[in-house]
Amino acid sequence: MTQPKPLPADPIAEAHRQWKAHGWGGVADGMAAVTSVMRAQQILLARVDEVLRPLDLTFARYELLMLLLFSRRGSLPLSRIGSLLQVHPTSVTSAVDRLEARGQVRRQPHPTDRRAVLAEITDEGRATALAATTRLNESVFADPGLPENGVTELVDLLTDLRSRAGDF
Amino acid sequence: MTQPKPLPADPIAEAHRQWKAHGWGGVADGMAAVTSVMRAQQILLARVDEVLRPLDLTFARYELLMLLLFSRRGSLPLSRIGSLLQVHPTSVTSAVDRLEARGQVRRQPHPTDRRAVLAEITDEGRATALAATTRLNESVFADPGLPENGVTELVDLLTDLRSRAGDF
Repeated sequence: MTQPKPLPADPIAEAHRQWKAHGWGGVADGMAAVTSVMRAQQILLARVDEVLRPLDLTFARYELLMLLLFSRRGSLPLSRIGSLLQVHPTSVTSAVDRLEARGQVRRQPHPTDRRAVLAEITDEGRATALAATTRLNESVFADPGLPENGVTELVDLLTDLRSRAGDF
Repeated sequence: MTQPKPLPADPIAEAHRQWKAHGWGGVADGMAAVTSVMRAQQILLARVDEVLRPLDLTFARYELLMLLLFSRRGSLPLSRIGSLLQVHPTSVTSAVDRLEARGQVRRQPHPTDRRAVLAEITDEGRATALAATTRLNESVFADPGLPENGVTELVDLLTDLRSRAGDF
């Protein structure tokens, strides 16, 4: 949730001071880094949700539509979607259920693997994904709220974190 | 969720390439920044949750306990907790309910404001908060998974983002 009234002091800087005062100074920077990522995610997700809500999309469903839009055939096996989006199979199932109910995706049998199911993006799904992208590009991605050269610096730091965590 | 098998390529770098290929190159860095924060938060929250789960705590309840632990009297009005943690009043109520059920917090009437309710940390709450901190300090905050000088660099960038978003 966005803060309606700004706080008089930065709550994470205050926690950092408390960490030092309690003898945990050696890990205070790490605490501030983890807590900052948590809060930054809340702020950005609130901005993204505000843009996607009128389109009846969540960020998870938007990411799934974009993955299918970018795929060569407009379809991918459900298991592949889970591994590319790094989410649990049950979350993929639930997102595909919702997208299918809105006519944005349809389930198809896999042409060669009888145990696999494909999710295929529909024309309606493509139109929704592109409309959402236009709005997100304008309202969030064009200015994510960082200093000019901070954007690539942040991406580089978090690429390092994701790589160390074994994402790729 | 942590990725069981690393992907052959960075999915955010791939999305960045797709953004450029679709003529959205001007905002591709911003898209990568926002998506990186979302994924970094998932990675860090999974690590934090793994540490807190055996203590029957969530990160939200842990933050609430620490806020009370750090407060001068060991208690704060519920409304003040919401504004300091930047969460909705209903989330504070629900977290206090759960902490109270576990004997870690107790509700008290405010001494001077009859409309306000205080949450006060108990001895049990203090012990749990300190045990959780010891484990988080060791397992997550001591090494959040960033390059050596990347930790303060990340905190500085996200402090800027939080400040621009009106947090403080």
